[in-house]
Amino acid sequence: MRVASSADKTFSYIPDCSDLDIPEDADYVYICENNTIYGTKFHTLPNTKGHDLVADVSSCFLSEPVDVSKYGIIYGGVQKNVGPAGMVISIIREDLIRDDVMPFCPTMLKFKTQADNGSLYNTPNCWSIYMCGLVFKWLKAQGGLTEMKKRNEEKAAILYDYLDQSAMFHGTVRKEDRSLMNVPFITDSEELNARFIAEATKAGFVSLKGHRTVGGMRASIYNAMPKEGIQKLVDFMADFEKNNR
Amino acid sequence: MRVASSADKTFSYIPDCSDLDIPEDADYVYICENNTIYGTKFHTLPNTKGHDLVADVSSCFLSEPVDVSKYGIIYGGVQKNVGPAGMVISIIREDLIRDDVMPFCPTMLKFKTQADNGSLYNTPNCWSIYMCGLVFKWLKAQGGLTEMKKRNEEKAAILYDYLDQSAMFHGTVRKEDRSLMNVPFITDSEELNARFIAEATKAGFVSLKGHRTVGGMRASIYNAMPKEGIQKLVDFMADFEKNNR
Repeated sequence: MRVASSADKTFSYIPDCSDLDIPEDADYVYICENNTIYGTKFHTLPNTKGHDLVADVSSCFLSEPVDVSKYGIIYGGVQKNVGPAGMVISIIREDLIRDDVMPFCPTMLKFKTQADNGSLYNTPNCWSIYMCGLVFKWLKAQGGLTEMKKRNEEKAAILYDYLDQSAMFHGTVRKEDRSLMNVPFITDSEELNARFIAEATKAGFVSLKGHRTVGGMRASIYNAMPKEGIQKLVDFMADFEKNNR
Repeated sequence: MRVASSADKTFSYIPDCSDLDIPEDADYVYICENNTIYGTKFHTLPNTKGHDLVADVSSCFLSEPVDVSKYGIIYGGVQKNVGPAGMVISIIREDLIRDDVMPFCPTMLKFKTQADNGSLYNTPNCWSIYMCGLVFKWLKAQGGLTEMKKRNEEKAAILYDYLDQSAMFHGTVRKEDRSLMNVPFITDSEELNARFIAEATKAGFVSLKGHRTVGGMRASIYNAMPKEGIQKLVDFMADFEKNNR
């Protein structure tokens, strides 16, 4: 059951989740904490009214410190901020690792199966686990998630500040709900969008095309993207704007 | 429902599957074609009496040519003969890629979901796919599966021939059901088994300990193991036998 939505404005904002109409008998409240495609982020978690919060954090995992005690289950594909695609990391409150799951839940997908076997019930994606371990060490050496948050805010600000003063490019997300990781933007013309993507690609800025379901442009600026990369993109956008006025 | 078993002799042989009592309304007949732990192999496929055959081929995939038309579904984890752990390859007869699956089948686990999306419904294990691709090219350059079968037969014969004449070491599987990939063997004494594993490990022969559920020794001689590796193991075993007579 959907208790909140921003479908009315193409998911360009996070609905007010301070007083939702959540059924008493709901098993949990689910959010996608950072929407990779639309570039929104829950900067305030929903008031779940006592229900457990389950959050897909695939595209914001390790981008900032998280108070895990506010969640029942946190899970995310590692392929954005952590390591090579093909693995999911889950952080689950102990009492939710249970035997009384739905009878048709496949053995491999039961949290209890994985927990009881040290996440080694089957032969796992060893290489991805190893690479994630290297990333964890790198993160710690950089100053941990506090430092990552600082860097990510600085990085995102460069791009959002440019978008906010540009006469050609516009961010698509309400300011207070903007993601630090995924920055969608558009011009007022499909033709200009296409020309920008083509010229940017030629200049070495790849994967700027928005997700196929929404179009426009999107810059994904995960932990691995250095500040310099974003500054170069903004410089390129400013030049493009000047040359296509 | 189990229609054949070799549990009576610790799974050391393949039961006669030429005339099984298969219920008329069975959905399929399932086999694990090569048993990694017990070292058995179906050298003749069961007579399924018109039912579709579903085979887990994890530990024999790409070890020899296969007539895929004899199966409904072939599947296997790639981590033994194909590529890095964390992926499964499935070969499915077109008419079995269906919509009318059990209603509680997770979307991600439906063959139709994967088939309709070119196996890219989600972000997959890209690195493993890439590495498997390299292995496929390597296999073709070696002469394909016909050549692999020839090599694997030669390789296994070196080890089985030694076991068959040894007074100390014995293969545990009935001759006609032996696997070309996994060769379990024992001595008549647990103490001797332990000493052999310890000395072999010291000499650089790793992972010779049998699966924790069965004990003894096991040599896994997948495609990646060269003939020379097996000859060296046999030489070491012969020396050990001489020195511990």
